[in-house]
Amino acid sequence: MNTTLIKSTQSIAIIGAGGFLGKHLTKSLSSQIYDLRCFDHNLIGIDKTEGIQWIEGDISSSSLIEAINGCSTVIHLASTSTPSTADKNISEDAKKNIQSSLHLFDQCAASGVKRIIFISSGGTVYGSPDIIPTPESAPTYPITAYGVTKLTIEKYLDIYLRQKDIDYRVLRVSNIYGPLQTAQNGQGVIASFLSKIINNQPIEIWGDGSITRDYIFVDDVIDAIISCIEDDGPHKIFNIGSGKGTSINKIIQLIENTTGVKVQKKLKPGRKVDVKTNILDCSLANEQLKWHPQTSLADGLKETYTWIKNICRYTNIRRS
Amino acid sequence: MNTTLIKSTQSIAIIGAGGFLGKHLTKSLSSQIYDLRCFDHNLIGIDKTEGIQWIEGDISSSSLIEAINGCSTVIHLASTSTPSTADKNISEDAKKNIQSSLHLFDQCAASGVKRIIFISSGGTVYGSPDIIPTPESAPTYPITAYGVTKLTIEKYLDIYLRQKDIDYRVLRVSNIYGPLQTAQNGQGVIASFLSKIINNQPIEIWGDGSITRDYIFVDDVIDAIISCIEDDGPHKIFNIGSGKGTSINKIIQLIENTTGVKVQKKLKPGRKVDVKTNILDCSLANEQLKWHPQTSLADGLKETYTWIKNICRYTNIRRS
Repeated sequence: MNTTLIKSTQSIAIIGAGGFLGKHLTKSLSSQIYDLRCFDHNLIGIDKTEGIQWIEGDISSSSLIEAINGCSTVIHLASTSTPSTADKNISEDAKKNIQSSLHLFDQCAASGVKRIIFISSGGTVYGSPDIIPTPESAPTYPITAYGVTKLTIEKYLDIYLRQKDIDYRVLRVSNIYGPLQTAQNGQGVIASFLSKIINNQPIEIWGDGSITRDYIFVDDVIDAIISCIEDDGPHKIFNIGSGKGTSINKIIQLIENTTGVKVQKKLKPGRKVDVKTNILDCSLANEQLKWHPQTSLADGLKETYTWIKNICRYTNIRRS
Repeated sequence: MNTTLIKSTQSIAIIGAGGFLGKHLTKSLSSQIYDLRCFDHNLIGIDKTEGIQWIEGDISSSSLIEAINGCSTVIHLASTSTPSTADKNISEDAKKNIQSSLHLFDQCAASGVKRIIFISSGGTVYGSPDIIPTPESAPTYPITAYGVTKLTIEKYLDIYLRQKDIDYRVLRVSNIYGPLQTAQNGQGVIASFLSKIINNQPIEIWGDGSITRDYIFVDDVIDAIISCIEDDGPHKIFNIGSGKGTSINKIIQLIENTTGVKVQKKLKPGRKVDVKTNILDCSLANEQLKWHPQTSLADGLKETYTWIKNICRYTNIRRS
């Protein structure tokens, strides 16, 4: 059940509406907002709900202006990389994400946008934090280019607030999972594991399986984003996670319980980019946004597995 | 007297050798290093000491490779903006500084460079710090685009260390002053004030004159840079300043003492980009680099005034 506290008079643009999070957010906002614009570089295959303005284009194109013009709030979900791809071409990653975001912010300033909501990364901006669960005030020393990019965009948002009077909220989200997530480029552990199981393939485990992450169900993240639209509290940057750590070994056990399938494991050496433990302290979002995650990991896994099974069945029928 | 502890077998490239700091560094290293390469986009009017390789070119051009190829250390002084110009075009500033630095770092990685020394900004990366004097561990919330750019480049250096094995040192330098500094774009308070006095013009004071900065003489900064070339201590980021705060009113009093001229003041409203107080805690550089500033503000002002007087005399002779 998503938050439904926003005024329908808001005009909202979702940048990156065609992605995993974008599709969920569009669905949730479509019934609440009269003027909703959904922008993405690729809207092929998207179920285009009526009453929404769908705008396809590159972020550097003039169609961006069409998407944001007259909007009060812009929700910036666009990202071209993942923690593992960003490190492969740091300069290109910076250009595609930092420069594109600055272009978006400039267009927001020119179009009179009042607020930008940006989805940052609670799993990478802190690097290897000393304090666990990690609060927003912890030092930020990313160990991946992906983390630097997200942190830099956060810092620039504060400059746009000071210079151009655009308010902002940043959500440092932990490991999101849920229906519609595809396992690409090493992102989305749960999506990747479930897809392997469905395809009767072994699950690759980097390291000894003790790596611990904070998994948050997509509906809870959507609730957090919606809570930010009209928030007028003093803080602008929030951790969004379950506040609980789950090891890879524990995830596998939960997956076995949910699916009834015995997981085949393929052990691989640990990777440089993997922080040992990441758990977010989300008390600030609890307090200011009155946001609390609603979905347990067991329930979220079940829902995700149901979706992925249906998708595969559908794909198999089409192939046969 | 500059530090002379480096091995002459080092091959060093100075990127941005034609600027204020670059000219001083070139002079200091030219007698100590056999293989010194001086790179800048503009070397017109530079006194090209023999025995040094002078390479003119844009940082994106192939001449950059000529400058750094085979170098053990690259000293990155190139910067196209100042705190006041960066805010005027945030996106362009990011492109010119972040993207150019990443291009430089990529070329360093390809050329086998072992270490990069980067001059960051102790006056802007912390924003409005709660702790004064401010240590390197203080939170970094820049309030200007200039500060975001410098901080981002610092963060990327850590990624290049992790991914490409290039070591680095970052010097977060406070307000530098000294001979050869020209008062441009609002940077260089002392250069600006002295130049106004020489030209019998009033000094513009933003706010009530209580704004306090940490002024460091250029020779002391050069010493700090040279200390970094072969430093093998555990820390990589250092504040470089006097550790003492001096208000604008106090600077004016010192200038009056040095020059014997009664300063004409022109009061203007305070600016958004001016942090009230900036004083750096430099104990980390004291300990690890064994670096201690040697020049008092009174002596540094005297030396700077002598230089600026000679320049103006020379310019006047040429004009007459």
